[in-house]
Amino acid sequence: MENRRGKQSLLFPAPPQIAAYASVVGKTEGQGPLKAWFDMISEDTKFGEKSWEKAETKMQSLALQTLLKKANMQARQIGLLFSGDLLNQCIGSNFAVRNLGIPTLGLYGACSTMAESLLLSAAAVSGGFAETAVAMTSSNFAASERQYRFPLGYGSIRPPTSQRTVTGCGAVLLRPHGSGIRITCGTVGAVVDKGIKDANNMGAAMAPAAYETLRAHFDDLGRSPSDYDLIVTGDLGQLGKQILTALFANDGVHLQPYEDCGAMIFDAKQQDVHSGGSGCGCSASVLCGYLLHQMEAGGLKKLLFCGTGALLSPCSTQQGESIPAVCHAVAIEKEDA
Amino acid sequence: MENRRGKQSLLFPAPPQIAAYASVVGKTEGQGPLKAWFDMISEDTKFGEKSWEKAETKMQSLALQTLLKKANMQARQIGLLFSGDLLNQCIGSNFAVRNLGIPTLGLYGACSTMAESLLLSAAAVSGGFAETAVAMTSSNFAASERQYRFPLGYGSIRPPTSQRTVTGCGAVLLRPHGSGIRITCGTVGAVVDKGIKDANNMGAAMAPAAYETLRAHFDDLGRSPSDYDLIVTGDLGQLGKQILTALFANDGVHLQPYEDCGAMIFDAKQQDVHSGGSGCGCSASVLCGYLLHQMEAGGLKKLLFCGTGALLSPCSTQQGESIPAVCHAVAIEKEDA
Repeated sequence: MENRRGKQSLLFPAPPQIAAYASVVGKTEGQGPLKAWFDMISEDTKFGEKSWEKAETKMQSLALQTLLKKANMQARQIGLLFSGDLLNQCIGSNFAVRNLGIPTLGLYGACSTMAESLLLSAAAVSGGFAETAVAMTSSNFAASERQYRFPLGYGSIRPPTSQRTVTGCGAVLLRPHGSGIRITCGTVGAVVDKGIKDANNMGAAMAPAAYETLRAHFDDLGRSPSDYDLIVTGDLGQLGKQILTALFANDGVHLQPYEDCGAMIFDAKQQDVHSGGSGCGCSASVLCGYLLHQMEAGGLKKLLFCGTGALLSPCSTQQGESIPAVCHAVAIEKEDA
Repeated sequence: MENRRGKQSLLFPAPPQIAAYASVVGKTEGQGPLKAWFDMISEDTKFGEKSWEKAETKMQSLALQTLLKKANMQARQIGLLFSGDLLNQCIGSNFAVRNLGIPTLGLYGACSTMAESLLLSAAAVSGGFAETAVAMTSSNFAASERQYRFPLGYGSIRPPTSQRTVTGCGAVLLRPHGSGIRITCGTVGAVVDKGIKDANNMGAAMAPAAYETLRAHFDDLGRSPSDYDLIVTGDLGQLGKQILTALFANDGVHLQPYEDCGAMIFDAKQQDVHSGGSGCGCSASVLCGYLLHQMEAGGLKKLLFCGTGALLSPCSTQQGESIPAVCHAVAIEKEDA
């Protein structure tokens, strides 16, 4: 079984198949350049609920229902669910699966959660521990602003380096022994903290973590950027994307083809989103919207999906701490027919 | 590979070995009946730090250092680390492993985190995805009171059903192909919510989750309570323990031999802890203190360790929500020499 790992990387000799995927987003995301690929866009950013937090739970419920419908299965047929979100104590995720009878393992990886849940789901299915596994995460703009910064009603000014938390959710169903779109390997990141203390500049805090995980991925597996049709981070935003590109340029490595989910989901010229999108739901909805549809259509065959998370809390910031970050990478490849 | 699962349960055909374990606790825990078995007891409940949150991070660092020392290994030799805690955004765990180069997957399972991290570590090692894995979690009394209820300085009155969050940390190192104390199987719980809304009565909220996971464990694996030398929940407290025993009695099942980590860690007569201990660090330090030492000494051979978590947040309680709960069970067995 030694071929299943290489330092930080996990190899899946029997790559699990992405059997279904679903995405649900809010109004602003539904006005952005990726709007055509989301399964559901809610005009009501509260999703008919009384609070932003309940709206996030509702969004996860809707994404899970959509996923199950696409896969033609019942909730109780899910072998394992890996999910998490940004809300304190992950109430978005945990409340969404109350009394559904789904074996659930809760995660906290901040905005890296989609990649983390995909890696663990792939390991569970590939390792024979579950016949089906679901990876799911979400975020809500207004709930995040209130929890991490200020309630929207305060009308506080956000600096140009800040990112807008995406109201969105993504869910992926994995099955073993499939063809089509499969998870072939991945790299688990370590927690990196280069001393950035500005909670309005997450891109700068997270870029070094993305750099270290990508380096480990290439080194462990003998791969290079050109082995992929696309490398996406999620979500460094415009500034973090520039920093990551510069870090690789310092090594003489041209990080191309490279994009960032936070830079993709909004139109920087038309939408007032500062440095781009962020939040667990950003990379989750870009993956389960635009990216997996591109893979299904055949325009994209080898994708390296890198979830990046800033592991701060308002409390740690108030206590003068810098911002630790983590990045997990997942290789998603389409088998030739 | 079909023998690796049974509905909610995971089977480990090559059971990973518990190669080392470590526990660190605070002053009150160090005055309780289990004091002889902790590796480290700090008389300073702030562990030399300026805040309770930093104290929790320090406690995880100390537990990890103790674990590595016992195992005679370096941090960079850890294949995968699964950790989490109760603090918002899990800052206790994530800050403890900054810049150590350990591939880290963050969890949120509230007080079920020790069981959750053990199950995932066992699956990672048994599945060939890591040569070593560490499961770790912690909690801090004062930080939890401030975050979930009131700062200690307010001197608020706690009702008899309330539990005292343990200041403690536990860490376990798993290796494959070992003899001795091994993780043979486990059961992943679903999120159960029976409508309890009293955030000072976690035992009542969590007991139904423990009941459902234990039922699934016995059903999936054809086992019964008498197959174990000890079943421990962690941490239902005195009241939750009675409820769980009654739920099984309703089925005509005598849940014995059964104990609860929350009821074990403090002396109910000598220490003013109301319904007992709670917090991620409670079951973690009881496992990595008393229980594993009993297994090592040979007095305990078959242990079913059931972590129970209440998945509420102060925000969900303020919004009138009931308390979802989860329980994960881990079978830890000592091989006959």
